[in-house]
Formats: sequence, structure tokens, C-alpha cells
Amino acid sequence: MIIGAGFAGLTAARALKRAPVDVLLLDRNNFHLFTPLLYQVATALLDPGEIAHSVRSLLRPLGNAEFRLAEVTGVDLLARTVATGEGAVAYDYLLLAAGSENNYFGIAGLERRALGLKGLDEGLAIRNRILRAFEASRWVTDAARRRALLTFVVVGGGPTGVELAGAFSELVGLVLRKDFRDLDLAEVRILLLEGADRLLAAFEPRLAAAAAGVLRRKGVEIWFQAQVKDLSRGRIRLADGRRLDAGTVVWTAGVRGSQIGRGLGAELGHQGRVRVEPSLQLPGHPEVFVIGDLAGLEEGGAPLPMLIPVAMQEARHAARGVLALIAGRGPAAFRYRDPGIMATVGRNAAVAQLGRVHLAGFPGWLMWLFVHLVNVVSFRSRLIVLVNWAWDYLFYDRPVRLIVRARPDD
Amino acid sequence: MIIGAGFAGLTAARALKRAPVDVLLLDRNNFHLFTPLLYQVATALLDPGEIAHSVRSLLRPLGNAEFRLAEVTGVDLLARTVATGEGAVAYDYLLLAAGSENNYFGIAGLERRALGLKGLDEGLAIRNRILRAFEASRWVTDAARRRALLTFVVVGGGPTGVELAGAFSELVGLVLRKDFRDLDLAEVRILLLEGADRLLAAFEPRLAAAAAGVLRRKGVEIWFQAQVKDLSRGRIRLADGRRLDAGTVVWTAGVRGSQIGRGLGAELGHQGRVRVEPSLQLPGHPEVFVIGDLAGLEEGGAPLPMLIPVAMQEARHAARGVLALIAGRGPAAFRYRDPGIMATVGRNAAVAQLGRVHLAGFPGWLMWLFVHLVNVVSFRSRLIVLVNWAWDYLFYDRPVRLIVRARPDD
Repeated sequence: MIIGAGFAGLTAARALKRAPVDVLLLDRNNFHLFTPLLYQVATALLDPGEIAHSVRSLLRPLGNAEFRLAEVTGVDLLARTVATGEGAVAYDYLLLAAGSENNYFGIAGLERRALGLKGLDEGLAIRNRILRAFEASRWVTDAARRRALLTFVVVGGGPTGVELAGAFSELVGLVLRKDFRDLDLAEVRILLLEGADRLLAAFEPRLAAAAAGVLRRKGVEIWFQAQVKDLSRGRIRLADGRRLDAGTVVWTAGVRGSQIGRGLGAELGHQGRVRVEPSLQLPGHPEVFVIGDLAGLEEGGAPLPMLIPVAMQEARHAARGVLALIAGRGPAAFRYRDPGIMATVGRNAAVAQLGRVHLAGFPGWLMWLFVHLVNVVSFRSRLIVLVNWAWDYLFYDRPVRLIVRARPDD
Repeated sequence: MIIGAGFAGLTAARALKRAPVDVLLLDRNNFHLFTPLLYQVATALLDPGEIAHSVRSLLRPLGNAEFRLAEVTGVDLLARTVATGEGAVAYDYLLLAAGSENNYFGIAGLERRALGLKGLDEGLAIRNRILRAFEASRWVTDAARRRALLTFVVVGGGPTGVELAGAFSELVGLVLRKDFRDLDLAEVRILLLEGADRLLAAFEPRLAAAAAGVLRRKGVEIWFQAQVKDLSRGRIRLADGRRLDAGTVVWTAGVRGSQIGRGLGAELGHQGRVRVEPSLQLPGHPEVFVIGDLAGLEEGGAPLPMLIPVAMQEARHAARGVLALIAGRGPAAFRYRDPGIMATVGRNAAVAQLGRVHLAGFPGWLMWLFVHLVNVVSFRSRLIVLVNWAWDYLFYDRPVRLIVRARPDD
């Protein structure tokens, strides 16, 4: 049994394709999400169908894998069953790839009032909120209220925050400016709040500084040493007393392992991630492997980052581990082979750190474009994403700036 | 002022492009919806961005038109103001293009439990409900309950009902069958319920019979003389005593003019549509024109149908009428020039009735394809819709069968 159809879970299912096992994959969504492009849904460049793909169609080529839609609520390690909204399901071997969730650190008002950017539903909510704020601002005659409504705060200077702030400033400066002819761009503020004194902690300082420079040129205000203390209706307060009236606050400054991990009764490490053996097995439960964001494996004293390459490599390793156990052998220790990291800062600019190759600006962006395009899961999506990107690039336009939410259907 | 950014409102704004007037267009959505393809969103073939287009970007080429997002709650004809959620807005001339809404005729349980297919949010709700029903059915061990869950009822044998039932049977037979390998197709029922004794009342009998034949070959059960009496949780009862256990009921059997029309205090005709002068003016209020679905103009004893060509022709006529009034002349009477009607019954089959040309089957479908593709509002959408259609056609696949709803953002 595999819990989670993200990069870890899906890769594990594929790695078991030719193995003499029956795979049951559970997820609360019926789609696999290409998370690196989620910020492009949030900023009205892509539609959900371009970055999400039906799990069932992805499993079609695998003869031994079945999918079930279910919200997993817990794991009974002793009974070897998984509790779901649809009842308990038994497993022989379990690959736990439940991923991570927003961590609001109990900061007052944050969970209720800030928007996260982990799920597709959240990406759509951000898009709706941004567009609705611009629309609502046209009715507001009080300048201070209008400015507050048009103040957008992204909290967290990691890759997600940087990509979102960059794409968002382009949405405003290149597209909404033309849509809202009576808009005074001076009334629009985009802020990126970072708790430390630099962006992109995982990148080398020179690339991080380049990214900050690009963002500033795009009109993004960057506040360092900015710790959010609380968020009330329309107002954000920082630990050092600074305040901001902001209509929209997006939180990208904290994630932690899924709550399924906390319910295991196992030891948790940094960010609520499950401590695992070097083989990725759960201590005391050799039949359970934890992979992806939820696994808190340390290498060289630091936990492996929550990144797609880590998740995919761990998934392949765990799949081999299960087969070793079935064959009566012990699973090997996992070693991560780092392919590098990259983040885009918007049109024409990205930073990429691939081994000794460090790229910023346009070359970094070309690299980013190439890597993401070839990795979009299906050929059809690739084609459509390409059309949308080209459209955006050539015409400075955003195709899908629609405020739309499905009506409740039950 | 124009209320409504549907085909009537948008066409009116465009028709006033070069006129010496200031146009204010109000709508509760920030997008114009290409309604003829909404059933393809409901059946997981197209994404919202492919059939909806930002009103603001559509208005960009018009120098004299402004858009505001607002829910219009009423019109004060004496004060010449429109009441909105954002306050009252004054007008000199009003083009009322508020369209139509679902009419449930007060049938018990229908409004609460059936799904309509008028808005984009409803199209997404149907898609979510259908896909969730298939997913949920995999967990149900009781065969009767599973069959009820997999019974899908479309009420109303007009073009919307016929197109939806046809596309839905293809979604099941060509796509979901492959996604759900353990699905017993005999457990899936698709029913089309029609109150009269034939489908497609607006088409000539031969074409309607051809459409019914195609639907039956696709596995759709058609019930004639089927009047819904009430809908309780999971069960639909007909006036003649027939019953059906059905997990999903989609209502396409009734529309009526928007509630804005009912609030006018003006005389209403059939389907709650506003009675207008031959010039489309509101009796007693020459500065108000009613156009599109909300206008109940009769020609030859019958009201003009709620169709896009009617809406667009009325819009152009009313725009000329406003300019005539400004110039001190009286507006002319409207005359509808019927370009014909068409409806698709699925892959490779449609019926089209264009003057003396009557087409069914594949030729009708080619005509349908051509007319709809050239009419999709933007070149980008046309390109992407074409990619999706070609994909569907060549690979018997549906690209966007995702269950997704935006998270509430406020």
C-alpha cells in the first residue's frame, strides 16, 4: 500500500511496475499535482488541468496498481491497517508518502486568514483573492482603504515565496495594468517578508542576492528580519513592532510533515518529519517505509530537503527495499544524489545551482524552462503549458484570470 | 449602462465601440462564458479557462467601455439607478442583459439536490459530482447501493440535456471504463428524462429522432412523458409513479428570466421574461432596453428562443436604438434573422438545421465543430480547445478529469 499520489507515491508505484506485488495507492485527491508550477495557477497563468493529472490515467500503464480515493486518517501499525473515511484497509507493506502541510506555528490569526500554497485548491483561492481584490478596489473611494486592499504580502523568502512574488508582480505590472486602466500602480504594493536576512537559504549568497535584485527591479519590496507576530482582519503585525495593512497575505514560510506522521506514535524530527532508519524504514516496523517530505532522513547532520528529487529517489529506493524484504534480504541504506536546485524569479530570470554550475538571469531561466517543461507529466499538458507560456511571453498576457469556484455539489 | 457580460451584454458593448457614449458594463462574474461548450467542462473535456474569458481583456479594444464586478440586486426605474452590492449606480440609458436562471418550478427537493448547468461553477460541480460518484462506488460492497450511486439522470431533452447525456455516456464508455478497470459497465445507468414524447422540440422530428437513436446506441436510456414530481435524497419520483434511485440528477428542463426582471415591476411573459416593445424597449421606459434571454419579444405568436444568435442580434439592435434616442429619433422594430440551430450528440454525431439544410450524424458534427471552433472567443482558447478536442478524438481520453474546488478565500 502506498499513501499519497505525490511525486514520492507515484514514483514508488511506477518503480514496482514489474514486481510480483499488488499495489494499492490511496490519495484524498484524484490527481497528481505538478507542484513546481502551482504558483502559476495562483497567478492566473495556468489552469488546473495543465498542472494536475488524473492518478488513474497515470496508473493505466501499470498492470499491478489500483487507485482508491480516500482521506487517510491514521495508521494502525500493530494491526497493519490504514484508517480511512471509507473504513480500515489492510496492508502487508506500507510506503508512507503523505507529504507535508502548511505550518502556521500557532501564530494568531494566520491559519484562518492567510492563504497557503500547498494544494491546488489553495492556488485557486489565491488567484480568486488577488483578482477579487483588484475588482473590489475599483469601488472603494477612500484611498487608504484602497491601498490596503491592494497590498499583497507573501511571507517566506524560500523558492515558493520568491517565485510567487515575482510572478505576481508581473501579473500586476504587465497584465492587470492593462485590464484596469484607471488603476494607479503606485497604490499597489507587493511585499516579500523573510525572517532571516537573506532570501533562498538553500542557494549560495551570490545567487540569492541576484534573485533579490531582480525582485526589487520588478517592484517587490523585500523586508528582512520580518517575523510575523499576528494577523488580524486586514492587518499584519511583526515581532519588532512593524505593521502593515494588507488585504491579502500568502503564507509560504513554514511546512511540516503531514498529520498522518504525528498520529503514528513514532519519533518525529525537525518540521514534524518522521525519523527513519538509513534504509527509510520506520524503526521497529521494517514493513513500513516513509518517503518524501514526511521522511526526516538526515545526511551529514541535516535533514534532506523537501524536494521532488529527494522524494523520487527515496521512492525508488523504498520500492527496492520492499522487494528485498520479500526476497528475504535486508534493504540497503539510502544515499541522495543531488541534481541541483533552481527557482524562477519571473519572466526571463531564474537562479539555478547545478553542481558547480551556477546560473542567474536569462541563462538560469532557460534552464528552468527546459527542466520544467520536460517534467510536466503528460505530453498534452506539455503542449498546452507551452502554448500558455508562449502566449504570456509574446503578448504579456495571462490567459486564465477568472474568478471561479465550483459550486458545492453535495 | 449594460447589466450582464453574456453574449447580449458583450455584443452591445462592442456595438457601441465607436459611439460617443461612455459604457459601464456590470456583471457578477469577471468572465464571459462560452455557454455552448459548458457541458464539455461538466464532462471533463475542457478546463474553465478554455470557455471563459476575462471580460476586462475582451473590453480592452473598446476605448469607451469600463467594467465593474458587482452583483446587481435591482433596478430603480424612476431614480434611474441600479442597486448593487457595492451601492447604487446611476445610468442614462440601460441595456438589461441579465440573462436567465434555472427554473425548478417549485418541485420538492429539486433546487437543493439537483445540479443545474447554467454557470461555470455548476459545470465544475457536475464534473466533481460525477467523478466522485465513480470513486465512491469502488468502496461500496452492496450492489444495489453501488448501482444507485452509478445512476445518472439528466432531466430535460432539449439541446443542453441531449449534449450532456451524449458527452457523459462517452466519458463513461470511452474513458472511465479504462480508468476503472474493475468497473462493471452494466452497473452504470445514464438516463435522459423528457416530459414530452420527443427530444429537441425546436428541431424537426426527423432530426430529433436521429438524435434519440444516436443516444440510445451510446447506451443512454430515454424516458418520455417523464415529469419529475419530487427528488429526495438519492431518489427521484415521477408524476406517473415511476421511481429511480439515482446518485446524480442534473436539471436542464427549465429556465426562466433572471430575478432582476421579476424585481422590475414590469409585465412578465412566458418563462418570466420581460415583455418589451417591438423596439426592445421597456414599456413606459424608453431609456431601458431589455435584450437576450431576459427579453420576451414575441414573433409570430411565439417568444423568440433563448439562443445566442437572438441575444447578439437584439444587442446590436438595442445599441442602435440607444444611439437613435440620443440623436432624437425613435428606435426601429427588431426582426430576428434565424441562422439555424444545432446540437451535438457526441463524438462524430450532431444535428443541424440551417434553413433548408438539415444535417444529422457526421456531417452535422463537422458543421458543429466548425461553427463552435470559430466562435470560441479568443485565438488562444481556440488553439487549446483544438488540442483538447483532437486529443479526445484521437486517444479516446479526457484530459481534465480532476475533482477540484477552490478553497474558500475569505
